[in-house]
Amino acid sequence: MISDTEVDTSLVDGTGIAEAVEKLRNRFGQAVSVNETIRKQHANITTWHPVQSPNAVFFPRSTDEVSEAVRICAEHNVPIIPFGAGTSLEGNVNAPFGGVSIDLSGMSEILAVNEEDMDCVVQAGVTRKQLNEYVKATGLFFPIDPGANATLGGMASTRASGTNAVRYGTMRENVLGLTVVMADGSIRKTGGRARKSAAGYDMTRLFVGAEGTLGVITELTVRLHGVPQAISSATCSFPDLLSACNAVISTIRFGLPIARIELLDEIQIRACNLHSKMSIPEQPTLFLEFHGTDAGVVEQVELFEEIAREWSGSDFGRALRPEDRSRLWQARHDVYWACLALRPGSKFIATDVCVPISRLGDCMVQTQKDILETGLVAPIVGHVGDGNFHVSVMADINDAGEMQRIDDFIGRLNLRAIEMEGTCTGEHGIGQGKRGFLLREHGDNVESMWAVKRALDPGNIMNPGKIFATTFLERLR
Amino acid sequence: MISDTEVDTSLVDGTGIAEAVEKLRNRFGQAVSVNETIRKQHANITTWHPVQSPNAVFFPRSTDEVSEAVRICAEHNVPIIPFGAGTSLEGNVNAPFGGVSIDLSGMSEILAVNEEDMDCVVQAGVTRKQLNEYVKATGLFFPIDPGANATLGGMASTRASGTNAVRYGTMRENVLGLTVVMADGSIRKTGGRARKSAAGYDMTRLFVGAEGTLGVITELTVRLHGVPQAISSATCSFPDLLSACNAVISTIRFGLPIARIELLDEIQIRACNLHSKMSIPEQPTLFLEFHGTDAGVVEQVELFEEIAREWSGSDFGRALRPEDRSRLWQARHDVYWACLALRPGSKFIATDVCVPISRLGDCMVQTQKDILETGLVAPIVGHVGDGNFHVSVMADINDAGEMQRIDDFIGRLNLRAIEMEGTCTGEHGIGQGKRGFLLREHGDNVESMWAVKRALDPGNIMNPGKIFATTFLERLR
Repeated sequence: MISDTEVDTSLVDGTGIAEAVEKLRNRFGQAVSVNETIRKQHANITTWHPVQSPNAVFFPRSTDEVSEAVRICAEHNVPIIPFGAGTSLEGNVNAPFGGVSIDLSGMSEILAVNEEDMDCVVQAGVTRKQLNEYVKATGLFFPIDPGANATLGGMASTRASGTNAVRYGTMRENVLGLTVVMADGSIRKTGGRARKSAAGYDMTRLFVGAEGTLGVITELTVRLHGVPQAISSATCSFPDLLSACNAVISTIRFGLPIARIELLDEIQIRACNLHSKMSIPEQPTLFLEFHGTDAGVVEQVELFEEIAREWSGSDFGRALRPEDRSRLWQARHDVYWACLALRPGSKFIATDVCVPISRLGDCMVQTQKDILETGLVAPIVGHVGDGNFHVSVMADINDAGEMQRIDDFIGRLNLRAIEMEGTCTGEHGIGQGKRGFLLREHGDNVESMWAVKRALDPGNIMNPGKIFATTFLERLR
Repeated sequence: MISDTEVDTSLVDGTGIAEAVEKLRNRFGQAVSVNETIRKQHANITTWHPVQSPNAVFFPRSTDEVSEAVRICAEHNVPIIPFGAGTSLEGNVNAPFGGVSIDLSGMSEILAVNEEDMDCVVQAGVTRKQLNEYVKATGLFFPIDPGANATLGGMASTRASGTNAVRYGTMRENVLGLTVVMADGSIRKTGGRARKSAAGYDMTRLFVGAEGTLGVITELTVRLHGVPQAISSATCSFPDLLSACNAVISTIRFGLPIARIELLDEIQIRACNLHSKMSIPEQPTLFLEFHGTDAGVVEQVELFEEIAREWSGSDFGRALRPEDRSRLWQARHDVYWACLALRPGSKFIATDVCVPISRLGDCMVQTQKDILETGLVAPIVGHVGDGNFHVSVMADINDAGEMQRIDDFIGRLNLRAIEMEGTCTGEHGIGQGKRGFLLREHGDNVESMWAVKRALDPGNIMNPGKIFATTFLERLR
């Protein structure tokens, strides 16, 4: 499956691209770059996928400029690859057919903050950290936290979530409306600012998670949430993965409104201890965060302690002071670097399965056994309240034999999740890496997706080669 | 706008329908009815829209039977109108082009309840009351409550919500996956049982709210929630609508996890007092419900009392005993009957605007003034935590002058909401009644919706004449 990234050059019409880039440079001058370094930076840089650079990079300043550029590209049948912060993990920003990368990071204005309605309107290049800094004084915050300081447009496009999703939902639940430049350059506004609506098809939810294959998101209206009166963090170790998973199931089943519940396996804890100079016992460990009123948080912590005891959880390591909390969650966010430290010189390969939580224990235990038997260095960390976990495979990408074993392992992992009525991707998206698995997971339903794609992008110029497998497209031709 | 329900007979091919019905009767026997009474019961019966009966009604027992019937209809270009409990409010089940109504109420099996995952799989004809009765012993419940005992398939199709949505979300947030029979009879499964997924386009959310215009929903996987440890209800009166709205804004802004917060204006209270033999002061009144732990509910009530006092709210009328709670919410649910009692012999015309809550006070006050100036009998009730309210216009439908005034009033109401960045429908859907307003609200975006519709239902046989205005279709032809 890993090798399913071959370049199909049928779309690449040298003349068309050259002409379009020429027109774009004439129109936008310095805002269009063909510099090789810049082009490479606008291809996949986070994963093992080969770098497939675009022919040019365009840095627009407005929705109208995006529209104009898309019209030029459409006229010449040139692929368009929307680009945010470049932190996606499945080759989502690669340019397998060449084309123009539209880098929205310069469109980073916060257009409106509506405190009473707890929403805001931002340009697509605004990052989550920038937004949270901006709204700090209002007592509101934007909860979606995928780890990286991604742009909101990118986060919407991959339907991102992360550590807070168990309480605050994913981008699916937090985007109220979008401005999108369609494949013909027309500008559409979806959704609105009402908290709910039954007015026609849910086009907002269609663009969220479409990975730029249906249009370029240029503006978003997103929900904000009130900063809770009290926040408390804690860690809790368990004798084995299954006990930790059972504690998670009980917590969710009890309706405890936990804000974060992250599971790190013993290998991941070792990596974090090494990298972040912590001294957590090397056992499966839950990192927790409770949000609420002062009294509410105390009550939540007491209830969780009861649940944890039932599943042989350790006494709590609590972090009530903001600086201790920050240190704890920084360690959690730094797992990427911690993993690299575990096997210097290796490359990080991300996985992203998500299963119904009743199957989480099964799925994690089987996967850990599989890692051991395959002989991989591969810590596990999970947003377990949602049933979502990542195996971070640390790979020597020059060892063909090992890469084959990893390929097989990832295949088994994804199919294991799919067989458990789960998904091969909880939050990273399909990109290039999981197109085959999307077919396994959704079968004929992918044909409906493709019909929608064709309807809104008849020329297949919007981020082609993502989500839909070439083999699938060929089957339909 | 009200008169935009004229029958366009271009789709009605007498021969096609007769042949299809004949085939259906040969294949399904008694499960296909052409009885006039039954046909009339399967057209719009809840609103002022004219009754437009289908040519036949089919009562399937399985997804496969639905698929077979759709294939027969597709072969003869015959419209299909999916039917649940018939409680929709915008003519959504009318058959303006004739065709076959597919009544799913007989497909009422609960196929699986997954307690640990807090979800269940049901056939589309299962009603919300039936489901809640069934899962009672598990300590779980299905929160969406639109008032009527609707089927889950119908609720998904109109993106229903109701009194609990402020805390538990709408059908959009609570459907995890669907089985849908497409316009060509093929069967598709969308979504899955994982709590989140980034695997391809969100087809589930596309079918939720599509009002049967993209396919027939035959099965659903929906979320369940834990029955809270403690529930407390209360009423609180305010000197005027604006104060009540301000109390609502403060409640939401404070992050109080209120389960229900319903606003009834003084006319609606009078109607409820008359019908349900209650003695609530005839002032704008909030009906509230708090869910949580024992301590949590006490804390919530105290916080709300503080907020209410700030906006001159009355002392609480609290209903802690389950029977008192039931009586209170029964009165709320019975507003339909209460309204009819307010003007005997009149017909109930529903409206359904939803605005950002910062505009709720403005919108309600302007609307109340408009009602007064227009001389209408029209109580107001709202799911105000979401910014959604209903004006129930009690109409003498034989008085052409009054009907014109009502038509104008509804036009002003919908446009007022749209101008406030809200929507003409928070939860009832577009149906036949709001097709013109959808265009006002979403403009060119409706063209994208129509492109999706054409892609998935090229023959326009799935519930034609709903969502999309004839004038709009003509413009595109």
